[in-house]
Amino acid sequence: MASERLTDWSVKFLSMDESVSEDIMCATHRALCEHGYAALTMQDIADESSKSKASLHYHYDTKRDLLLAFLDNLGERMTERLAAVDGETPTDEFLALLEELLSPSTERYPEFHTALLEIKAQAPYVDGFRERIADIDALVHERLRAVVAAGVEAGEFRADLDPEETATFVLTLLNGVRTRHVAVGGSPDDVEGTLLRYVEDQVVAAEAEAPVE
Amino acid sequence: MASERLTDWSVKFLSMDESVSEDIMCATHRALCEHGYAALTMQDIADESSKSKASLHYHYDTKRDLLLAFLDNLGERMTERLAAVDGETPTDEFLALLEELLSPSTERYPEFHTALLEIKAQAPYVDGFRERIADIDALVHERLRAVVAAGVEAGEFRADLDPEETATFVLTLLNGVRTRHVAVGGSPDDVEGTLLRYVEDQVVAAEAEAPVE
Repeated sequence: MASERLTDWSVKFLSMDESVSEDIMCATHRALCEHGYAALTMQDIADESSKSKASLHYHYDTKRDLLLAFLDNLGERMTERLAAVDGETPTDEFLALLEELLSPSTERYPEFHTALLEIKAQAPYVDGFRERIADIDALVHERLRAVVAAGVEAGEFRADLDPEETATFVLTLLNGVRTRHVAVGGSPDDVEGTLLRYVEDQVVAAEAEAPVE
Repeated sequence: MASERLTDWSVKFLSMDESVSEDIMCATHRALCEHGYAALTMQDIADESSKSKASLHYHYDTKRDLLLAFLDNLGERMTERLAAVDGETPTDEFLALLEELLSPSTERYPEFHTALLEIKAQAPYVDGFRERIADIDALVHERLRAVVAAGVEAGEFRADLDPEETATFVLTLLNGVRTRHVAVGGSPDDVEGTLLRYVEDQVVAAEAEAPVE
């Protein structure tokens, strides 16, 4: 009985090859940009994909299930974005990371982040949303923490810097940039100068070279 | 004809005395905490108030109209909160302002800020939401800017500080605190230490007294 269920499960999920999953994820991204989260229907997603609504429902029982898979996929894409960031020194890497995280991640940046903010606002209500958003938050936090720790270790960053708290501070600021962008039309440029001065004066050790002019 | 309409309008709005308006605003606050924004109905608000649903509709044609009045009321309450903040010096006042803005503003802080984040996420879609949210954002921004400018003027804050950019930086961080609180359960305490060190090292002039131990 258990092995029968396992077979069913395997057939169902192994039958969805990566290109199908990718097609559905891209369609979900486009549909979220077009309709937002609250108004989104499985039909909207089907309309953006090469699949029928019935086929979507074959892979994902509900809109919530599909959105959970989408958030997992978003986490994978964030992992790839973070892995692509590099630098000769911890200071270079930290600055490259800030630039990457401040820059628009998608072509339809405002629409997508509006939908993402709707999803964040639903985090306390929809089972599984908060865990996935927290996973993505933790990915970024860990990368920021690691590079700050490496900078302290290398003597490039202030010795009294707490990598954990510094990562939280920067991550909180980035969350604020996204929220103000959606809510009042703020731009990442509004904080970039102050953030760079913060890094220069608060993160990088006084005896190290200043990262910006 | 025009004067007739004006009379109708005056009677309708002058007839709503302040206590009625206050009752409806408090009921809206409670209903938002209870149900969130997306699921909120006029009946939910009536259930929290001493008024009937018909009476609510007499004052506000739609849920959107009521929410716009609620956001205006929120702005008035923010004005009062900001006016109550004081300090002997610009440094004291700036620190008191940060403490006030970081602290929970309502008894039902998490629920209310979840609803407010939903409303922010609807800002691009619902006519009038963005303007009201931007008004509240501008109130806080102006107060932060003014106290930073006063600190620079008094020689307490760094002479090279841009009051406008500093206010935006702090306001963006505060937005991030709210968003992370709702989305991943973060706390204002997570950034308080780093924010105070930022103020100590980046805002207050080196020759002035340090604001924190």
